[in-house]
Amino acid sequence: MHAEANDQETFLYEEVAGGVETMMKNGALRPGDRVPSVRRLSASRGVSVSTVLQAYTLLENRGLIEARPQSGYFVRAQPRVLPPECTITIPPAAPAAVGVSDLVAKLVEAARTKDIVPLGAACPSGDLFPNAKLGRVLSAVARRSAASNNQYNILRGSDTLKRQITQRAFEYGCVFPLEDLVVTSGCAEALNLCLRAVASTGDTVAVESPTYYGMLQVMESLKIKAVEIPTDPRNGMSLEALEMALEKHHVKACFVMANYNNPLGSFMPEERKQALAKLAARHELPVIEDDIYGDLHHHGERPKPVKAFDRGGWVMLCSSFSKTLAPGFRVGWISAGRFTERVQRLKFISTVSTPLVLQQSIAEFLESGGYDHHLRSLRRAYTTQLGFVMDAILHHFPKGTRVTRPQGGFILWVEFPEKVDSLRLQTDALKRGISIAPGPIFTARDRFRNYVRINCGNPWSKEIERALITVGQLAELQL
Amino acid sequence: MHAEANDQETFLYEEVAGGVETMMKNGALRPGDRVPSVRRLSASRGVSVSTVLQAYTLLENRGLIEARPQSGYFVRAQPRVLPPECTITIPPAAPAAVGVSDLVAKLVEAARTKDIVPLGAACPSGDLFPNAKLGRVLSAVARRSAASNNQYNILRGSDTLKRQITQRAFEYGCVFPLEDLVVTSGCAEALNLCLRAVASTGDTVAVESPTYYGMLQVMESLKIKAVEIPTDPRNGMSLEALEMALEKHHVKACFVMANYNNPLGSFMPEERKQALAKLAARHELPVIEDDIYGDLHHHGERPKPVKAFDRGGWVMLCSSFSKTLAPGFRVGWISAGRFTERVQRLKFISTVSTPLVLQQSIAEFLESGGYDHHLRSLRRAYTTQLGFVMDAILHHFPKGTRVTRPQGGFILWVEFPEKVDSLRLQTDALKRGISIAPGPIFTARDRFRNYVRINCGNPWSKEIERALITVGQLAELQL
Repeated sequence: MHAEANDQETFLYEEVAGGVETMMKNGALRPGDRVPSVRRLSASRGVSVSTVLQAYTLLENRGLIEARPQSGYFVRAQPRVLPPECTITIPPAAPAAVGVSDLVAKLVEAARTKDIVPLGAACPSGDLFPNAKLGRVLSAVARRSAASNNQYNILRGSDTLKRQITQRAFEYGCVFPLEDLVVTSGCAEALNLCLRAVASTGDTVAVESPTYYGMLQVMESLKIKAVEIPTDPRNGMSLEALEMALEKHHVKACFVMANYNNPLGSFMPEERKQALAKLAARHELPVIEDDIYGDLHHHGERPKPVKAFDRGGWVMLCSSFSKTLAPGFRVGWISAGRFTERVQRLKFISTVSTPLVLQQSIAEFLESGGYDHHLRSLRRAYTTQLGFVMDAILHHFPKGTRVTRPQGGFILWVEFPEKVDSLRLQTDALKRGISIAPGPIFTARDRFRNYVRINCGNPWSKEIERALITVGQLAELQL
Repeated sequence: MHAEANDQETFLYEEVAGGVETMMKNGALRPGDRVPSVRRLSASRGVSVSTVLQAYTLLENRGLIEARPQSGYFVRAQPRVLPPECTITIPPAAPAAVGVSDLVAKLVEAARTKDIVPLGAACPSGDLFPNAKLGRVLSAVARRSAASNNQYNILRGSDTLKRQITQRAFEYGCVFPLEDLVVTSGCAEALNLCLRAVASTGDTVAVESPTYYGMLQVMESLKIKAVEIPTDPRNGMSLEALEMALEKHHVKACFVMANYNNPLGSFMPEERKQALAKLAARHELPVIEDDIYGDLHHHGERPKPVKAFDRGGWVMLCSSFSKTLAPGFRVGWISAGRFTERVQRLKFISTVSTPLVLQQSIAEFLESGGYDHHLRSLRRAYTTQLGFVMDAILHHFPKGTRVTRPQGGFILWVEFPEKVDSLRLQTDALKRGISIAPGPIFTARDRFRNYVRINCGNPWSKEIERALITVGQLAELQL
């Protein structure tokens, strides 16, 4: 029933968007014209406000209309011009030891510094989160359940939270039993536990290229090698290359961010997700799936993770509320399939349990029903912010700079002309109070020297614009 | 200044206790007599109420007086009889792989079960903690700082909490800079980070014998070997044996609980702590010190940890508030000396940060000044509970059963006659709704088969008494 309703809604908002596009093509709407207000269109077409909003977000992403604060949506004076797009790159085929810690330390140090323009770490702005409401919920739970909040609560976790997570997961195609859920101290701990459950020192793990530096750091600390798999900036990891790696090397696990790889923003189409799940089962390959950006799709439905196609329990799905609701609460989770018991044991020896009072507060926030509404406005905000940064890159970064086209999340992967050294760029930018994430932290190889990742998690401002202009100028100086 | 005041107070309460003892010896106080009330003695001797209470606790520990609820203290009808004491045992000298996980899983499973008599896991009773007050503080902090609570707060930690920890540490002889403090998700994470900072797969680490199973589990998960060092039930780890192990094997670190080893309750005298600190510096041996029971001394002053004698930064001091105030909050800390940077990095990749709102709440609770008062009553409660369990063991456990004499904490280490198999005993007891911790989980070797650890963290009750009688009977059946 539910999947049907979803399909219908997808159809609806694409139809609405198509209708508006037709009006633009046949001249009924001309550049600069205001498109019908959301409410008006909602009433006249007999669809929900949220369907119209989704349609307009889609058109915005396609560069056809633009939002003007307090005025509504307008047909763009000219179709939006975007910088050229990043293309796939091919890493060396052999596994390699990881050594990114020193580079990451610099990034983290910058993130700790006050008054830095935060284009480095992938931290969303706190202003976008419902902090006050969440604080009120926490305040109430703290008083109401003071005694039960203060127990060790070994491995149990909040049942309310687990139910909420399971229900939401069901909506994006995952059916997993409550008992398979392990609540963790953020997604970082989730990744640690999953990796330690299936690999140890000397082993090799397959990762996308580029991949999330946090996972590389965990691998480095455990002396686990990385074999990097070519990853398309649009469609994600090459399964052909993964299969070749599995044949050549003894690969103990595969780490993947199918919904919006960090830093690429790549998105695996459903048929590839399904193929990956099948491949994992065929090769008995544990897959660690980081779905932390899965709720941050820019348009359409909440995408399914690889886990949705997992039949044998080979996929360990990890996520958290840190990118969408509560970074400070450090509440994440794993649905660990056949590895549940091992993961549970590792959770116990790592941090025993995750504070119940924080789990319960997030659960009650979710139960109250405000989360979906919040997610919608958050996704719109991220989409808008990405658009502004992309425009700034087009206008202020050196000619030939390429940028990804993420369909979710709030980060951009930027490829400068080859001569630009992003480590030098990072140093130069830091001196001017700007943090950026250099490409080499996203690989175990000496790659992506001329790449940087830009955090677009903060509302657009003059300050951010000035910072991007400065980064562009600093890059230009290296040419 | 402060140390002087402390010395004076120690002197005072021992003098007061000595005075009472003299009256008992010269017949002024006879068996069954009520000893002077705390208030009266406090007034007549011109000392504080707390000094008299300490004196009476000391006399109680020595088995000379006993407390009767609502009536005061009385001279015992006959000096208290205790079960015979455990003696030191000698483990094999070679390092060994650790494999305790399956055994521990059973213990943890039991701890999760409702309505079990909890003599197994070392969890203090929640009833002894100021849950309501802590809940009120958390409730206030949650509302007051909703926005700042909800940030990633990378590596910073609450400055208020760090100041409180540093000030308290200063009182027990430790001077460490605020910057050396890493706040962790409980002491469990602290131990993980310290171990990972100095050892990895294939390495050997020296541990007390017996030692805390949590640390053994971390070692097992990282495939780190244990070399067990003979540990005296009263005076702690044999430094001579440790030095021999260092000469024979390539030992990467030493794990020690100088203040009340879990499960022995052993206490390293100051001169041995000092010697261990010197030995560590001489051998450049990282020492991971778990001081989680340090605040739970049964009498006298809060003892110094080994860290107090550490000059070169070789000792990593770990602790938390889980045994004294807030098990559910998962807030621990490390003063990591020369390993601070490494530990900080590992913290970042493991869980990023520990929830600020919980750190801040504990800090404000500490600042409010109620903590020392709470600790005093908590220590008295644990001392009393240990006494009751010891009496029950004397009367209901098989003849020849030996017990430790812990001077701090709330656990007892019990040695049954050799024929008793504690794993079988654990299974039998579980069937009757009673959890105990079997000896073999505290060693990497097949040792301590006839030992169990008894948790005395719960207020004495008929139910606990009945459970101990049952355990005694079950052990008897094996003889």
